[in-house]
Amino acid sequence: MFYLIGLGLGDAKDITVKGLEIIQKCDKVLLEGYTSILTVGKEILEKFYGRPLIVADRELCESNIDDILKEAKEKDIALLVVGDPLGATTHTDMLLRAKEFEVETQIVHNASIMNAVSCCGLQLYNFGETVSIPYWTDSWKPDSFFDKILGNYKRNLHTLCLLDIKVKEPTEESLTKKIRQYMEPKFMSVKEAARQIVQIINNLPEKTDIAVDSLAIGLSRVGSLDQKIMATTLEDMQQVELGPPLHSLVIPAPNLHPLELDYLAQYR
Amino acid sequence: MFYLIGLGLGDAKDITVKGLEIIQKCDKVLLEGYTSILTVGKEILEKFYGRPLIVADRELCESNIDDILKEAKEKDIALLVVGDPLGATTHTDMLLRAKEFEVETQIVHNASIMNAVSCCGLQLYNFGETVSIPYWTDSWKPDSFFDKILGNYKRNLHTLCLLDIKVKEPTEESLTKKIRQYMEPKFMSVKEAARQIVQIINNLPEKTDIAVDSLAIGLSRVGSLDQKIMATTLEDMQQVELGPPLHSLVIPAPNLHPLELDYLAQYR
Repeated sequence: MFYLIGLGLGDAKDITVKGLEIIQKCDKVLLEGYTSILTVGKEILEKFYGRPLIVADRELCESNIDDILKEAKEKDIALLVVGDPLGATTHTDMLLRAKEFEVETQIVHNASIMNAVSCCGLQLYNFGETVSIPYWTDSWKPDSFFDKILGNYKRNLHTLCLLDIKVKEPTEESLTKKIRQYMEPKFMSVKEAARQIVQIINNLPEKTDIAVDSLAIGLSRVGSLDQKIMATTLEDMQQVELGPPLHSLVIPAPNLHPLELDYLAQYR
Repeated sequence: MFYLIGLGLGDAKDITVKGLEIIQKCDKVLLEGYTSILTVGKEILEKFYGRPLIVADRELCESNIDDILKEAKEKDIALLVVGDPLGATTHTDMLLRAKEFEVETQIVHNASIMNAVSCCGLQLYNFGETVSIPYWTDSWKPDSFFDKILGNYKRNLHTLCLLDIKVKEPTEESLTKKIRQYMEPKFMSVKEAARQIVQIINNLPEKTDIAVDSLAIGLSRVGSLDQKIMATTLEDMQQVELGPPLHSLVIPAPNLHPLELDYLAQYR
């Protein structure tokens, strides 16, 4: 059996009782290290679970997953994923491959930023499509995500912006070499995301509904005890420090429900 | 301290370890019985937690919550909610009132249908706004949710439709009486939802992008071991039996990603 187990968002104790019991009976437990960041270290998880964990990096998840799945025909293997296991396409793909190999699978769901974002007081059913904001480089500054935010805004919907994560990314120079070298991990902050959005707005040929004085909500470490939430203009969000990763940004709809306004007031 | 604890979607063991530890140390534990349905009975939960539970019905949550919050100034009180605690406006409102009374609060997140719907293979970030489909009566047949589905569809986004739940609803006749009488609980099935949508489509003055032969996905008991998923046309979905509640319906975007198509194929 191949188990995909969500770890939730906070610390070791955010796993479900069901997930913990499965980990404790599995023959092998892998910990995914690349689609998201762990809020606590591997050692703390190992101690809490009472099991050794094998870190499954990008290469293992994308290139060598078949070997693991074949092994799961005979053995019980779990892959632990921060948040909910079906947030990323990689895992849907894994489940399809498992089916091909006739390996049984089970998913253990958990909270993810996609539902826990409601902690800022905005109603989940008023969110439109989610966007990802990528790190810009000198020569690559994609801005199509802004049109999606604008599309939601015009329909009076909120937008959750997932901010870029670079973990175990090969350096450009090493791509052609035999030995891979990796960049330092980096996680986009609310400040950096706001800066890119303000640049896009300032470069627009004409005014749109979203301006630099539009409201934005910055969130960090959602689901952990030290989570931070701040609501201010996009302009001011460029200076807001929300501490260690992970960060997320929300662009709220223009017309908020009175309850949403009341709730947000505490974060202004 | 007032704790809002999500129970997840499946059975007793879908609570997080953190949530379970809080329950076990609380002075009083309330179980919310009206915004959603429990997948297991109160007795099973009580046995698993080793704690008695007080069922908090609609009246308690809406009219008498202040008394509970005042009590939480001195004591530790937890309110258990199926899914994630911030899926419903009632709880945002509770947190605001707690702030008013200067009662400390903590939220323990968990999976909800809003993120676990990804089990059908559709990517979460391609979902537009969520709609609720209400039970129609002879004289009240609201159809504004269909415009929202259509709005998502035109932008190539999926729509999650939450289906109506009637639990502890006072009968119309008893509203004016001193003694309240309640209707039998009922939960809208995928079949019933599809029938209402097909009626709306058939009554439209002209054709829209969504027709009776458009694809729909029915889901039941998501997150539990006996969850069922079925993908077929809206027309055929009117006959599909997916067993006991809760049910949800998804109207997928017209152009699906190859991976989404591959994954859905197993449910056709």
